Amino acid sequence: MPEEVLAPSVAVTQKKSFLRAARGEHMRIPPVWLMRQAGRYLPEYLAVRADHDFISVCRTPDLACEVTMQPIRRFDFDAAILFSDILIPAIPLGCGLRFDSGHGPVIERPVRSRNEVDSLREFDPREELDDVLAAVKLIRRELPDDKALIGFAGAPFTLACYLIEGGKPDPFRNVKRMMYSDPEAFTKLLNKLADFTADYMLAMIDAGADAIQLFDTWGGILTVAEFRALNLPVLQRIVAALNHSVAPTTYFVLNGMHLASVAEIGADVYGLDWRMPIQSAKARFGTQASLQGNLDPVLLLTDETTIRRAARQIINDAEGAGFIFNLGHGILPDTPISSVDILLDEIRSSRA
Amino acid sequence: MPEEVLAPSVAVTQKKSFLRAARGEHMRIPPVWLMRQAGRYLPEYLAVRADHDFISVCRTPDLACEVTMQPIRRFDFDAAILFSDILIPAIPLGCGLRFDSGHGPVIERPVRSRNEVDSLREFDPREELDDVLAAVKLIRRELPDDKALIGFAGAPFTLACYLIEGGKPDPFRNVKRMMYSDPEAFTKLLNKLADFTADYMLAMIDAGADAIQLFDTWGGILTVAEFRALNLPVLQRIVAALNHSVAPTTYFVLNGMHLASVAEIGADVYGLDWRMPIQSAKARFGTQASLQGNLDPVLLLTDETTIRRAARQIINDAEGAGFIFNLGHGILPDTPISSVDILLDEIRSSRA
Repeated sequence: MPEEVLAPSVAVTQKKSFLRAARGEHMRIPPVWLMRQAGRYLPEYLAVRADHDFISVCRTPDLACEVTMQPIRRFDFDAAILFSDILIPAIPLGCGLRFDSGHGPVIERPVRSRNEVDSLREFDPREELDDVLAAVKLIRRELPDDKALIGFAGAPFTLACYLIEGGKPDPFRNVKRMMYSDPEAFTKLLNKLADFTADYMLAMIDAGADAIQLFDTWGGILTVAEFRALNLPVLQRIVAALNHSVAPTTYFVLNGMHLASVAEIGADVYGLDWRMPIQSAKARFGTQASLQGNLDPVLLLTDETTIRRAARQIINDAEGAGFIFNLGHGILPDTPISSVDILLDEIRSSRA
Repeated sequence: MPEEVLAPSVAVTQKKSFLRAARGEHMRIPPVWLMRQAGRYLPEYLAVRADHDFISVCRTPDLACEVTMQPIRRFDFDAAILFSDILIPAIPLGCGLRFDSGHGPVIERPVRSRNEVDSLREFDPREELDDVLAAVKLIRRELPDDKALIGFAGAPFTLACYLIEGGKPDPFRNVKRMMYSDPEAFTKLLNKLADFTADYMLAMIDAGADAIQLFDTWGGILTVAEFRALNLPVLQRIVAALNHSVAPTTYFVLNGMHLASVAEIGADVYGLDWRMPIQSAKARFGTQASLQGNLDPVLLLTDETTIRRAARQIINDAEGAGFIFNLGHGILPDTPISSVDILLDEIRSSRA
């Protein structure tokens, strides 16, 4: 980490750079963070996880703060993102959540009927997710003022997929069964999830988050018509609620190239997966919104020349846009540390 | 099955209907077959598999013929598709292939280096896949003249994904590593696969296949630029070779909504996954090509009203186009037989 990055004058620039890029301003050196930047590719993260299970790390403010800070210390990213999981709200909803090693999340009481939707607990995130909010406060204190802090949530459709299937949702049998056979119950579920999500994100902003990202990992399985009918209204509602705050909102949908309607959500930033050429994204979102993305995370498993060339291409393509550099999906567990160093060196190469 | 369907005058219509639709003619009742129509949702298929492993069924003409015929007998589909697997050619290529129950295909000697590409065996499909071709001949004899018979192969990129990863390819670590770090070796691999694929398909046509489908299950992981640079040229080459035959060619890519370039392949029919609205497909492919698809296979797990409504919508949207009804991906193993009956009844409802 070059020393001048820590000097106050430059330091302020990292957070400002992130927020200005999120508000549509093109920054010569794009701000950068990486999805899942706190995680299994870092030995210091694995050291924490050796003693603590995943949910405990999420729900213990000291631990969540520690793992959130790890990639900032190591890589000097421009933004930290709260270490948590989009499924944590399944716990106060009364669905039960555990992570079986190697098998991913398990929702202990899946939500498949209208009765099960009706019996989801209503809860106030400020009370029942106070541990997560305490983590946000703690991180905001620990994090240098010059860095942005991102809070996040799962988009309602994506949360619904996990709650209905009871874990990894692919191929979405029960989701689609409910969506088609009882669209009223399905819509009710999405609205219930949207209700607490807006509150939860506003509480994160109050706790110190500078920006919010909504992860819609599974939104791309929907057809255009389904997306418009079911997903768009609840997303618009959440984003409208957040637009009354000071924090910009990013919407990330995986595999959503067909969903031109995402541009109607009203988000400040659209996260792009690696399949969407930046040029297409510029055409889709125009100057209304900023873009974030979209290096294929698998590229970090290749060689230095490939990483530098691909990163440079993205930066060149983003010329003129409000743009935040990121990956097109989460960083892979077997990513070498040196690849992240190379990537950051390339992105910041004209900073020196 | 209504009796008149088997009467010769109507009978001839089923194959003709399929071939005319594949050549761009709009049929009032669209011809229909379903991807994976021979398979695990059929008790008679499970009965065969109880005594024979998957590869043996593929490589024993009597067994391949029997399971190919099963869905024709039960549902009177307009086309039969050879029972085989896109990975069978891995055997004469020298890579080794087995299917571990519950874990999918295993390529015993993955192809990850330039040397491994160079040492792939060259083979003549007419000699070393003669058992598959014998199955095609046998099926063509057993199948009523009124039905079309479809032969198929994996598209080179999709085959390469399996060969490189050694099995289920997601998340394509080694594929992309090779693609980016040694594009020359990667291109050589695709070309080697394209070489035998064209020969193999022409041999299937000689053996009695009336049409060919290329399955590009993984083509949609590519960016537009990658698709154009790597995949499009080999696909064009195969399709050009097949265009000299009498059999129409269908290209199916999963999750390829972003790949407008597929229209340049030159196929007669484009198979659509369930995400692509028929209206968008009409805009993309114009009157140059026919369309095939695209009911979401998960819909067959819902209720009668939902299945009928969705099928009717697709048929209405396809008005005016050369169109073959199919699913948007393979039929799911837990599909009720009754759902297929309902679907066919809806598609053919104005036949009576």
